[in-house]
Amino acid sequence: SRSINLAVIPGDGIGPEVVSQGLKVLSAVLPQDVKLETREYDLGARRWHRTGETLPDAELEDLKGHDAILLGAIGDPSVPSGVLERGLLLKLRFAFDHYVNLRPSKLLPHTATPLAGRPDIDFVVVREGTEGPYTGNGGSLRTGTPAEVATEVSVNTAYGVERVVRDAYERAQARPRRKLTLVHKNNVLVHAGHMWKKIFDKVGEEYPEVTTDYLHVDAATIFFVTDPARFDVIVTDNLFGDILTDLAAAVTGGIGLAASGNINPAGAFPSMFEPVHGSAPDIAGQGKADPTATVLSVALLLRHLGHEAEAARIEEAVAADLAERAGAPARSTDEIGDALAVRVAN
Amino acid sequence: SRSINLAVIPGDGIGPEVVSQGLKVLSAVLPQDVKLETREYDLGARRWHRTGETLPDAELEDLKGHDAILLGAIGDPSVPSGVLERGLLLKLRFAFDHYVNLRPSKLLPHTATPLAGRPDIDFVVVREGTEGPYTGNGGSLRTGTPAEVATEVSVNTAYGVERVVRDAYERAQARPRRKLTLVHKNNVLVHAGHMWKKIFDKVGEEYPEVTTDYLHVDAATIFFVTDPARFDVIVTDNLFGDILTDLAAAVTGGIGLAASGNINPAGAFPSMFEPVHGSAPDIAGQGKADPTATVLSVALLLRHLGHEAEAARIEEAVAADLAERAGAPARSTDEIGDALAVRVAN
Ligand SMILES: CC(C)[C@H](C(=O)O)[C@@H](O)C(=O)O
Ligand SMILES: CC(C)[C@H](C(=O)O)[C@@H](O)C(=O)O
Repeated sequence: SRSINLAVIPGDGIGPEVVSQGLKVLSAVLPQDVKLETREYDLGARRWHRTGETLPDAELEDLKGHDAILLGAIGDPSVPSGVLERGLLLKLRFAFDHYVNLRPSKLLPHTATPLAGRPDIDFVVVREGTEGPYTGNGGSLRTGTPAEVATEVSVNTAYGVERVVRDAYERAQARPRRKLTLVHKNNVLVHAGHMWKKIFDKVGEEYPEVTTDYLHVDAATIFFVTDPARFDVIVTDNLFGDILTDLAAAVTGGIGLAASGNINPAGAFPSMFEPVHGSAPDIAGQGKADPTATVLSVALLLRHLGHEAEAARIEEAVAADLAERAGAPARSTDEIGDALAVRVAN
Repeated sequence: SRSINLAVIPGDGIGPEVVSQGLKVLSAVLPQDVKLETREYDLGARRWHRTGETLPDAELEDLKGHDAILLGAIGDPSVPSGVLERGLLLKLRFAFDHYVNLRPSKLLPHTATPLAGRPDIDFVVVREGTEGPYTGNGGSLRTGTPAEVATEVSVNTAYGVERVVRDAYERAQARPRRKLTLVHKNNVLVHAGHMWKKIFDKVGEEYPEVTTDYLHVDAATIFFVTDPARFDVIVTDNLFGDILTDLAAAVTGGIGLAASGNINPAGAFPSMFEPVHGSAPDIAGQGKADPTATVLSVALLLRHLGHEAEAARIEEAVAADLAERAGAPARSTDEIGDALAVRVAN
């Protein structure tokens, strides 16, 4: 489309800093004839302190009108843990039915990895985004007493699993290696695990060219560090995906480079793009945050909206920038954003 | 005590091979005047195929009479996933109230690690063993239909959390660095997570010398590969502990070296010691399995029963054996067991 109507949620901590670099690169990469409109939403810790609100219905309604959402980071130590995560970030993912939480992991040349021998890493995690232990189901009885019982309920539906598994097969089918790994823990979480496995096998019959594989989540973490090259596309549950993608980020150059998309494939609601990293309050406002993860999230956003050429240009610019960065003195958030904006504009 | 009445469950796959090396080293290390009695229990895949039984009540009752249990591995591809895990392994952990699942991780000299730079790794994970998502709570509605709903309920009690947290503080207090990290996901699993955190803070008041720390499980996996030296003692939930200890094993030389104890600290029931690795059916019966994890589990068993000197002798023997192993041709399961038995006997 020849216009992008973008909602921007800078959020907390380093969120505003990295988002402004993301927008800088977005403006630089877009052709003249694509009109970019942005509207910023003041949501996060400051708003909560001021008004007690996390995400009022009116704003949720307004957000629906955008083509996509760019989000920085949510979470601050001054707010009780869970209030903003559940009341804002997860509320958005659930309300907008972001059932595909897409997290690509690629070890680019010239980036540091804690792994010896620099394995070939290039995989995508398709994390389910609207079910599992993230539903908020559960509760606490006799809270705060020695007799307290607290439960967390992982809710999984065939409807929810089938659609994300199918999306993952489609992605695997479109990649050269055509390999899909299901990660779960079906030897312990037998109800959810068996349903996932059954649906995974069933949908797989429609994709005879895709090679499949199953790993328990504990074993998967081992392969992430001993043989990450074995992975192509991974599909997994909301919580396992959360854990695995932080580990994936760590082995592919760190959380400063990890991008993600919270995608509603059917397009009924705007998809939301955000760096995998958190709000990092300890370095907020110091110009130390690496905006690359946000810039790469902008690339995912552009690809989602059909601007493939621009997405690729951003990814090439990041690769070139990382190559240049190796051995050079550290640059500020702003300097990295500027350098990337210059590169994509060329 | 001057006698050990040990139950042995060799189990499936490589279980029998590694257990026999564990017993060989155990016999070799014990002083003449300590009488070792062992009784083997035929439990696992073969038994299930033959009789349909996983762990009959009579055997569970018999097992209670032993001082400790040595277990090899449980699980076989010929048995539906979960049947033996839930019906035998977890049944033992739950029936014998093994609420401390103790998993030490140490990167010994001369062992391979996938991490560049060989960080200093020496920490202990205290994994809760009787609650959380492992309770088997949950179910499936309209199973096998497109309308299926499957749930898994994580059950957490103040009683269960308090006792394992206290055990972890005791262990941290007894170590030189006196540092304890709680790992959970209290920004999403707010009911269980807040209870864990509250109890962790409360019990901590009794241990003013112990430095404490909290990490979300996703962030913890990052530090396991970028800065594992930061950890001393970790206390965590059953499922997070499962995931983290496989990753810990991977970065400290692999699953072939990782030992564990399922401990009932009060001694009301026998504690159970087992390698962290699984039954590895692909290499079973070929003499390829590394029995070191089982031998180190025997050391934990001896320490638990008060034979500290013998436990230490085994650990020294393993360190010396690993040093010798570096660069040498691979040895068989039996050869490694023999070498360790000779060393501890000296
Ligand atoms: C902040 C938190 C709720 C979130 C999650 O657990 O999904 C984050 O860790 C992520 O991975 O996007
Ligand atoms: C086999 C399985 C049930 C078990 C677990 O999940 O606890 C194993 O992975 C372990 O860590 O001991």
